[in-house]
Amino acid sequence: MQDDRRKSENEAVSADVRDGLDTPVPVIDIDVAERNIVGLQQACDAAGVANRPHIKTHKSIEMARLQIKHGASGITCQKLGEAEIMADAGINDILISYNIIGEAKHARLADLNERIKLTVACDNEVVAAGLSQAVKATSKPLSVLVECDTGRHRCGVTTTSSAVALAETIRGLPGLTFAGLMIYPPNGPVDATTEFVDTVRRECQSRGLDISIVSAGGTPNRTRIGKAGETEYRAGTYIYNDRQMVGFGAATKDDCALHVYATVTSHPEEGRIMIDAGSKTLTSDLSGFKDFGVLVDYPDAHIYQFAEEHGFVDVTNCQKIPAIGEIIRILPNHVCPVSNLFDDIVLMRDGRRCGRLHIDARGKVS
Amino acid sequence: MQDDRRKSENEAVSADVRDGLDTPVPVIDIDVAERNIVGLQQACDAAGVANRPHIKTHKSIEMARLQIKHGASGITCQKLGEAEIMADAGINDILISYNIIGEAKHARLADLNERIKLTVACDNEVVAAGLSQAVKATSKPLSVLVECDTGRHRCGVTTTSSAVALAETIRGLPGLTFAGLMIYPPNGPVDATTEFVDTVRRECQSRGLDISIVSAGGTPNRTRIGKAGETEYRAGTYIYNDRQMVGFGAATKDDCALHVYATVTSHPEEGRIMIDAGSKTLTSDLSGFKDFGVLVDYPDAHIYQFAEEHGFVDVTNCQKIPAIGEIIRILPNHVCPVSNLFDDIVLMRDGRRCGRLHIDARGKVS
Repeated sequence: MQDDRRKSENEAVSADVRDGLDTPVPVIDIDVAERNIVGLQQACDAAGVANRPHIKTHKSIEMARLQIKHGASGITCQKLGEAEIMADAGINDILISYNIIGEAKHARLADLNERIKLTVACDNEVVAAGLSQAVKATSKPLSVLVECDTGRHRCGVTTTSSAVALAETIRGLPGLTFAGLMIYPPNGPVDATTEFVDTVRRECQSRGLDISIVSAGGTPNRTRIGKAGETEYRAGTYIYNDRQMVGFGAATKDDCALHVYATVTSHPEEGRIMIDAGSKTLTSDLSGFKDFGVLVDYPDAHIYQFAEEHGFVDVTNCQKIPAIGEIIRILPNHVCPVSNLFDDIVLMRDGRRCGRLHIDARGKVS
Repeated sequence: MQDDRRKSENEAVSADVRDGLDTPVPVIDIDVAERNIVGLQQACDAAGVANRPHIKTHKSIEMARLQIKHGASGITCQKLGEAEIMADAGINDILISYNIIGEAKHARLADLNERIKLTVACDNEVVAAGLSQAVKATSKPLSVLVECDTGRHRCGVTTTSSAVALAETIRGLPGLTFAGLMIYPPNGPVDATTEFVDTVRRECQSRGLDISIVSAGGTPNRTRIGKAGETEYRAGTYIYNDRQMVGFGAATKDDCALHVYATVTSHPEEGRIMIDAGSKTLTSDLSGFKDFGVLVDYPDAHIYQFAEEHGFVDVTNCQKIPAIGEIIRILPNHVCPVSNLFDDIVLMRDGRRCGRLHIDARGKVS
């Protein structure tokens, strides 16, 4: 009885948000997003670790402010352009978790460093020398973290000795302050990461190199916050979650705040429908899955192919087939590049549209 | 001797465009793009077929105007939002090659139809009824093409009889004018398409249904323009070309006008470098390839993985390895979703930067 009532409430709610909706468009359930923000903050608080959410997922000033309102100590950006947008909005404690390099970025970096409390990551001496070059004539030193690779094989020095050596290099460069370490552990147990961090910390201490920050991150490792000896945590995807995070066990379907709403445009032949969302809406990001997203109300349907503005959906195994004109909900495989495709996104509360979220740092890749 | 001179000229040229470039960013060689525009126009002229380029690739008013200046009779848009942007810029002959459906779009459609010479495609009765509903109270009929599937299995009626039946339906609906057919033949010989079109034409003629337009498209079939009995051709990708078009034999490397310029940010271990272009720059579109683009100056390197802002490049087989800080050129697998990620793109002429191209219709997916 309760289940039945809940089901019919959900349907009524859905009818409201879809009414007159211009598709394809992402829709964020703001209650779910806010619950996610609070949940991650509580996890950080419980672990005694500062929360510095990564804004790459939402790229929105409003969402960054909401994260700070709920207790975040600052934010993380991946690119300088994102950080500039956030600084312009008055957010004044930012980590750029990225090797910043190149003449075009150095003047921007120096300017940003004068304006806010800025920290950047670095994993090699060429980048470090450039950072020094960028800021050495300014009055304010730039805080730099040594990025360490503890198994993800992306950026980062790969040995504890090279981490210590780079820390020494940074200390010796004019205009730079060595501030600590940045890690991005692979999904799963963090024992190897913890050992790496402990070793570097010991070696640094013996050289008088003070590690005041150890920044860790990643929504999939949210149950292990604090376990690698970090002082702060940068998670991004947790604010919306996606099919990937559900697959990792880092979220349930009910924790997914963003869905793409699309319209069925055609039913050209038996077993196949077409929707108005393609790779320019949902991206071609498979994230290890075999299809391009989940039709949450039609779990037996499969988005097996994309053109730029067409989604090809196999409905062979569906008992009920979505009708032409029907608006369907899709859970993206990977939500972060999806919000990056839109200038603004529909906000929903209690199943009703309640405004739009501007994606202020959309497209700021440089 | 001549080869040597050419090589050193090219290198000087490259040094210029890269000097102080803020990466990652697409760079368009405007001479190559203009040559591509002229070439496709000549192919259409030679076939006696009108040229109606698809703007989905460039999404730029300036490029659309250049196509029209060189002889295009009008343009093609995939989405209503793109067409609105182009109409606002004074382009007044537009085909929207897409099923337009839903209350939110109907008012916009009626408004656009009043302002310009508009044609839309349609492959089913539900969409047709909606189009009629949208415009029937207005003073101007809407021209509608029946979209036919001749083997690509995207949208389109799949049989000649259903094409004729839909043409009849459109004729019978208030506010609509049946104007002809739209086809998008699969890559390769178009014999089946030609037969399909001939049959529908015959059947329509016998019913007094006038086919004044047959619109075909696709850059890969550019050598077969006119062969399916079309009156106009809508190619999109040809303006820039990409790795995919080179693979199809529809272009050579020298015909590729757009490259993404990225910077090497790290060389974390033997055999691997990292670049500042990831899936938010080049997209995850594999287009059938095994890696995410071609490093044209380092053809033995492979972009084997993407994070959102990181490209993972295997340089194991490279004799020379790009240095940290070096700006490298990447030919995208599929160029169309790449330009859709940027507000503006760098223009280059004679190897020197000469301005920026605004991507006016970027993100206009609805």
